[in-house]
Amino acid sequence: MKNTRRQIPLSVEWIPDEAGSAVPGRVRILDQTLLPLETRYIETTDTDVMWEAIRSLRVRGAPAIGIAAAMGVAAAAQAAAHEGVASVLAAAERAADRLSTSRPTAVNLFWAIERMRMSARAACDGGCDGKTLAGLLVAEACAMRDKDAAMCRAIGRHGVALLKDGDCVLTHCNAGGLATSEFGTALAPVYEAAALGMRISVFADETRPLLQGARLTAWELRQAGIDVTLICDNTAAQVMKEGRINAVMVGADRIAANGDAANKVGTYGVAVLAKHHKIPFYVLAPSSTFDAKCATGADIPIEERAAEEVTEGFGRRTAPPGVKVYSPAFDVTPAELIAGIICEKGVLRVPYRLAGNVTSD
Amino acid sequence: MKNTRRQIPLSVEWIPDEAGSAVPGRVRILDQTLLPLETRYIETTDTDVMWEAIRSLRVRGAPAIGIAAAMGVAAAAQAAAHEGVASVLAAAERAADRLSTSRPTAVNLFWAIERMRMSARAACDGGCDGKTLAGLLVAEACAMRDKDAAMCRAIGRHGVALLKDGDCVLTHCNAGGLATSEFGTALAPVYEAAALGMRISVFADETRPLLQGARLTAWELRQAGIDVTLICDNTAAQVMKEGRINAVMVGADRIAANGDAANKVGTYGVAVLAKHHKIPFYVLAPSSTFDAKCATGADIPIEERAAEEVTEGFGRRTAPPGVKVYSPAFDVTPAELIAGIICEKGVLRVPYRLAGNVTSD
Repeated sequence: MKNTRRQIPLSVEWIPDEAGSAVPGRVRILDQTLLPLETRYIETTDTDVMWEAIRSLRVRGAPAIGIAAAMGVAAAAQAAAHEGVASVLAAAERAADRLSTSRPTAVNLFWAIERMRMSARAACDGGCDGKTLAGLLVAEACAMRDKDAAMCRAIGRHGVALLKDGDCVLTHCNAGGLATSEFGTALAPVYEAAALGMRISVFADETRPLLQGARLTAWELRQAGIDVTLICDNTAAQVMKEGRINAVMVGADRIAANGDAANKVGTYGVAVLAKHHKIPFYVLAPSSTFDAKCATGADIPIEERAAEEVTEGFGRRTAPPGVKVYSPAFDVTPAELIAGIICEKGVLRVPYRLAGNVTSD
Repeated sequence: MKNTRRQIPLSVEWIPDEAGSAVPGRVRILDQTLLPLETRYIETTDTDVMWEAIRSLRVRGAPAIGIAAAMGVAAAAQAAAHEGVASVLAAAERAADRLSTSRPTAVNLFWAIERMRMSARAACDGGCDGKTLAGLLVAEACAMRDKDAAMCRAIGRHGVALLKDGDCVLTHCNAGGLATSEFGTALAPVYEAAALGMRISVFADETRPLLQGARLTAWELRQAGIDVTLICDNTAAQVMKEGRINAVMVGADRIAANGDAANKVGTYGVAVLAKHHKIPFYVLAPSSTFDAKCATGADIPIEERAAEEVTEGFGRRTAPPGVKVYSPAFDVTPAELIAGIICEKGVLRVPYRLAGNVTSD
């Protein structure tokens, strides 16, 4: 068994303090805004640096943002660990308050910060010293990260069973390790396959307008030693027609109770093309992505993005001034085009159960 | 009837010499490399300037290139018109030789230049003076342009019958007036509809990697006063799903005898999406686009483009150095996905006749 795991770039890590070292434990994040041309890490215990990193999308992807914020709270607590427990709690609460304002609509961010806050208060209520509280918060943040990594691994294990040696997967946008911990979601079966010694290759849609496929997916797969080929979004149909794709694997931002899945714009088109070419189309996401409040995809609101992302997306204007642009951030793939939804619990197929009630088949 | 014709930008024009003016007749071409930000015309009688303009894609699109070259030969002849007939013929032949080397694979270019050469020799054989020969070559080049414009108008007349007031057309790449004379092919029904006072709107795929849709189609439609909305290629499926598209209209680079049509990469995917959404998909092209040497689309060779067009298409690199790229210039849409091929002779439907033998239905 080849170990390719260590080659997958880590978006967020906790760097523990070394015994006898003056350097405290700290968060390390990969600055994704510099990819794919520069690989630069930011190591910090400073809440303001973390706030800016989350705000400016240096760390992105819902799970990675939540973990980064939790580690930011832990780092602030640890920096105060030599003081009394009240100071440590106050430092953690200050960091939590501040980081909550970094991305106003990131649900994972609030959830992770609240969990850190609850843990800190519970430990204080139970009675402990400052150093113990700080250590506990570090452990809590690392557990969050480990749980996310384990969930991605589980998605990978379920997903790899749908692939055979030599297969080629087409993916859209980036639902890889950069958005999560280690394996990602859509790319988890590919990484799991590589770890098992299988030869799996990938075609990555560049994913206009923001080019997450070109900038992030192609980069992380290359870092991990996976054979990846970049294509323009409009070339996916031709690649399928040439018989080069065995499966499509994409992530999801939200899944309705009936299995309709919202993901980066272009995903729905890929699903239609996959159906035409009789290629199975899989959605890979944690079971928490199911939203019981949405009965069908029609209940999922679609955000519209700024025209400039399309007309000036590359540092210079490439469309006539004033031209009308339609740029939805997401689209919804109806459940009937989805061969299976792969979550940490297994492979779900139609009819899907309600969120919180999913079971593997 | 609203006259919107004059608003359609002209890619190539002949500017006649004015009576008594020292300025000779000359070619005027719209420099398409500066679009959509700058509208600059080049007026010249100089063969080297024309050569560079064709070479550097300042004028592009097979019909427009042919006409530009023919007018380049005429301009060279006219510049020598005050000399003897032998000098005029020599000037025309020199220009023809030179312009033939500007784009090595452009069939229309060679055809147009050869036609000019044959006309010049025939006129000389018939006996004429230098001024008459020069005038004859100008008339020949202008006739070529007028014939192309008339053909585009005919395509527009046949195509507009497939649209109704208020319809919305989706197009891919640029097969508009910028590539031809006036009406273009894919956009001809839209311009004809506007001339008839119909309200037709257009969604234009931006068309990666070279963004002909964003740079050229969106620009020329806006110039002509047509309601156009720019989308990323991967958004076409969503726009169709929203019920906003009544017909897809695209051009073609080559059409096999069975009706399989090669066009800019991404066209095939749009055809599949149109079928899924039960939207008619039309190919609009002169009947000369049929290539009897190709029995089916499998016989049409597909050129691969340089990786840099995808990875560095906007003046800066947006993909990891060394990443594998697959960038076919064209794809082939099978005849069964095409609701009709609209040429100057009418609307052709399956089964298509052989090239040179097409008839309207």
